[in-house]
Amino acid sequence: MVSTDDHNSDAKELEVMLSRIQHIIVDYVQKGQEQLVPVVNYHTPEELYKLFDFTLPNKGVGLEGIFKTISSTLEYSVNSWNPRFLDKLYAGTNPIGVISELLLAVLNSNAHVFHVSPVLSLMEIEVTKAVGQLLNMGEKAGGILCPGGSASNLLAMITARNKLFPSIKTEGYFPRPFHPQSKYGKLKVFTSIHSHYSIDKAVQVLGLGLDNIVKVPVDHEGRMQVDVLEKLIELSIQKDETPFFINATAGTTVLGAFDPIKDIAMIAKKYHCWLHVDGSWGGSVAFSDKVMKTTSWLEGSEHADTFTLNPHKLLGVPLQCSMLLTPHEGHLLFAKSNSSQADYLFHGNEYDIGAGTIGCGRRPDATKMFMAWKYYGKDGLGGRIDKALSLASQFTSMVRERKGFKLVQDPSPFLQVCFWFVPPSIEKHVESLKGKEYSLCLSRITRHLHQQIQEKGEFLVDHSPLEGIPDFFRVVINAPTLSLHRDLERLLDVIEEVNASVDWSELL
Amino acid sequence: MVSTDDHNSDAKELEVMLSRIQHIIVDYVQKGQEQLVPVVNYHTPEELYKLFDFTLPNKGVGLEGIFKTISSTLEYSVNSWNPRFLDKLYAGTNPIGVISELLLAVLNSNAHVFHVSPVLSLMEIEVTKAVGQLLNMGEKAGGILCPGGSASNLLAMITARNKLFPSIKTEGYFPRPFHPQSKYGKLKVFTSIHSHYSIDKAVQVLGLGLDNIVKVPVDHEGRMQVDVLEKLIELSIQKDETPFFINATAGTTVLGAFDPIKDIAMIAKKYHCWLHVDGSWGGSVAFSDKVMKTTSWLEGSEHADTFTLNPHKLLGVPLQCSMLLTPHEGHLLFAKSNSSQADYLFHGNEYDIGAGTIGCGRRPDATKMFMAWKYYGKDGLGGRIDKALSLASQFTSMVRERKGFKLVQDPSPFLQVCFWFVPPSIEKHVESLKGKEYSLCLSRITRHLHQQIQEKGEFLVDHSPLEGIPDFFRVVINAPTLSLHRDLERLLDVIEEVNASVDWSELL
Repeated sequence: MVSTDDHNSDAKELEVMLSRIQHIIVDYVQKGQEQLVPVVNYHTPEELYKLFDFTLPNKGVGLEGIFKTISSTLEYSVNSWNPRFLDKLYAGTNPIGVISELLLAVLNSNAHVFHVSPVLSLMEIEVTKAVGQLLNMGEKAGGILCPGGSASNLLAMITARNKLFPSIKTEGYFPRPFHPQSKYGKLKVFTSIHSHYSIDKAVQVLGLGLDNIVKVPVDHEGRMQVDVLEKLIELSIQKDETPFFINATAGTTVLGAFDPIKDIAMIAKKYHCWLHVDGSWGGSVAFSDKVMKTTSWLEGSEHADTFTLNPHKLLGVPLQCSMLLTPHEGHLLFAKSNSSQADYLFHGNEYDIGAGTIGCGRRPDATKMFMAWKYYGKDGLGGRIDKALSLASQFTSMVRERKGFKLVQDPSPFLQVCFWFVPPSIEKHVESLKGKEYSLCLSRITRHLHQQIQEKGEFLVDHSPLEGIPDFFRVVINAPTLSLHRDLERLLDVIEEVNASVDWSELL
Repeated sequence: MVSTDDHNSDAKELEVMLSRIQHIIVDYVQKGQEQLVPVVNYHTPEELYKLFDFTLPNKGVGLEGIFKTISSTLEYSVNSWNPRFLDKLYAGTNPIGVISELLLAVLNSNAHVFHVSPVLSLMEIEVTKAVGQLLNMGEKAGGILCPGGSASNLLAMITARNKLFPSIKTEGYFPRPFHPQSKYGKLKVFTSIHSHYSIDKAVQVLGLGLDNIVKVPVDHEGRMQVDVLEKLIELSIQKDETPFFINATAGTTVLGAFDPIKDIAMIAKKYHCWLHVDGSWGGSVAFSDKVMKTTSWLEGSEHADTFTLNPHKLLGVPLQCSMLLTPHEGHLLFAKSNSSQADYLFHGNEYDIGAGTIGCGRRPDATKMFMAWKYYGKDGLGGRIDKALSLASQFTSMVRERKGFKLVQDPSPFLQVCFWFVPPSIEKHVESLKGKEYSLCLSRITRHLHQQIQEKGEFLVDHSPLEGIPDFFRVVINAPTLSLHRDLERLLDVIEEVNASVDWSELL
């Protein structure tokens, strides 16, 4: 029987397991990367329940049993090493990513207090400072790692509220008009209609109510309209509300637009609002000198009070790795705004990073970013971004020129290439439709083709709706292993192949 | 130059790295477990900055460079494989824990939507259901993984609020008396004075205000006084407030007390409050048949609306692994209460677990618990708990009988053995002090000895304050490799040795 009593021989047991899993893993990576296996062996939940042994036994299954579980897990999971995994804003990771996670697993450390994670705590302080400085946040730049971009955005909003209205932390949220003596009216959050839904979630978590998010319209490229933002703020003030938090997005989720941070910063300053930038997706372009020199995407970031940046997206660091950066004394800003009395844990050390979070124990996720930076260097990480941008541009051209395909935006503003496919056989019918009918028809085509492609498993791409336009394919260019012809051109072929087998007359 | 362009040979690169790190890791585990190295080579932040290369370069350091970083990281970190790491409620992990993290790293998966994490999503559904059923939550048991116990407690409170007062989610939190037409008064949270500070953090996050937590006193064993709880609720209702959330703790952070869940459940039912159990620490005893049969610790858990349980504490699963369990349809409860419109991501699949969180992307932490259960079986995990309990009891006796040591509680209620050391040389002086002076003196002794022990590095233990009594040592019995005589008796020796070198006349 396998028992926890055997722990005194952990080193031996670990050696046996590591030796055995190494071949399995290397083989898995190779097959994924060389596309000898599909991105996924697609199965419905019902099918998977039959194929995979999910039982949880009283007696342990031992070494042989657990390696069966490991093999099955790999077999039925998405192989994100396959560059044809184009579905999400994250891609597969890389060798140093795996090694970093292994290092963290062995340490099993906790980055809440310095004395149990001395090196890893300082890594967090140093790497957030360095990334903040890429955003020109200066000497007092720094930050804190959160378990995902949504968590970073949430912590930003909590920090803003506690900093601007400290009485809410102690007394509670009691705004005018209900509480006439209150120093604030209903707190209002401003964000673009294309921003991530985590802003909505943060607003509801804080008890502000979803009705109190003001969704600012975007221009034709998906960027927040700053003049409208100002008008909406003015309107809100006239109603005796209190605008307090503006979220600018650097790289929107669906289209990849960059809100004009610099202009928004001026509005934030004028109206005494906290400026947060959700750069979960696009913030990582700070690593590319080329982008920083030739685009205005991150211009004005130094004026942000807080800035979310997820290395687990564009930099290939394993999930989860999200930073909340600030020019205001780094992690100490968060400690001052959010700490609770917890004398049993925090004994007054400014290197105890956990004090600034809304949690207690925390994974030392910063280590993975630290390791990636050390290994690839800033240049290596920047090069990854430049390569992806170049590929996105080439793929956009390819889609533009191919019959039957229609770009949602031309050029693609960032790394998402979004398009519709209108089957040539029914093109006339589709184009003859008007308004809602046209939209419904094209959405149905996208969804049907998408479903077929997903079940095939050769590619994983996403489809997405957006206010006012039909559902479209969203292809995310991220993995450095992605090839224009081998992969992206092939995707267009696959869409056509799948289309050829559909009898649209039955479906539309 | 190492560049991300080399990714097409990831399999080869990973193989080289894995082969190389394997020896380093196995050696590290062995030295820690056999105590050939101290728990930590203690250094201040200032010293560490000199010893460790924290620079983040433009050009990557390559394979040799990164292995230097890895070696230094291990050298200056806490070696939690050493059973003398007794400082926190988590201990070192175990081989299958490391392998599980490695598996997750290779998959780099995201448990927000089923189609990118099919196996891992079902693992989460199955393992939360199974753990919920150990708590007698029945057929509709289930849950969701959160990034830590605090996050689970927070999600519980958000869910309770959204479920009981859905208007807050949309309109915002506007209670009586300020908003006379409101259906609720100031929302009040009830929790014991010994409960974890994450309850406080959740209250401030939600905008309820720290003033609106009612801290219920505890009995001599640290358990919530249920009769006082009821009186406080009555009092609150008389003031036209709205008690809505009662937190019972199963295993308090400092002393390890179990609040009487069953009795508290009756109060919760009577006053229509949400019953949450914070079993982050103690909930895992559900794996021990012996505990479940012979104690009343978890009695009444089936009445909890939500229940936090952290396998990363008592079950040796790597950090982070925290579950929020519920008898109310598992993860679907959370989806119904907390989901936002995010059509780009969620396409209406009930296996898309992320819908219930306040985040988006999420680590598939459930996999680690699933793997641990498979490998050790419920019996193996339960055996670990039984062993720790037996050891805690023996160590308590040892402390009781040893001159100079005084137990804070006798017997120790759970796995924390808490005690003071009164140096025999100054015992008369200390005992002659009264009230605050006595308390200050004993606290100073504890802190001074603790600091010396920490710098020595042979052990890591924590010291803790608690309302009204002097600071004491808190020794957490958790690691299955811990030995009564080799380790715990030695700790008492070390305290005496350190004491022998202190000139108390100078310090007190």
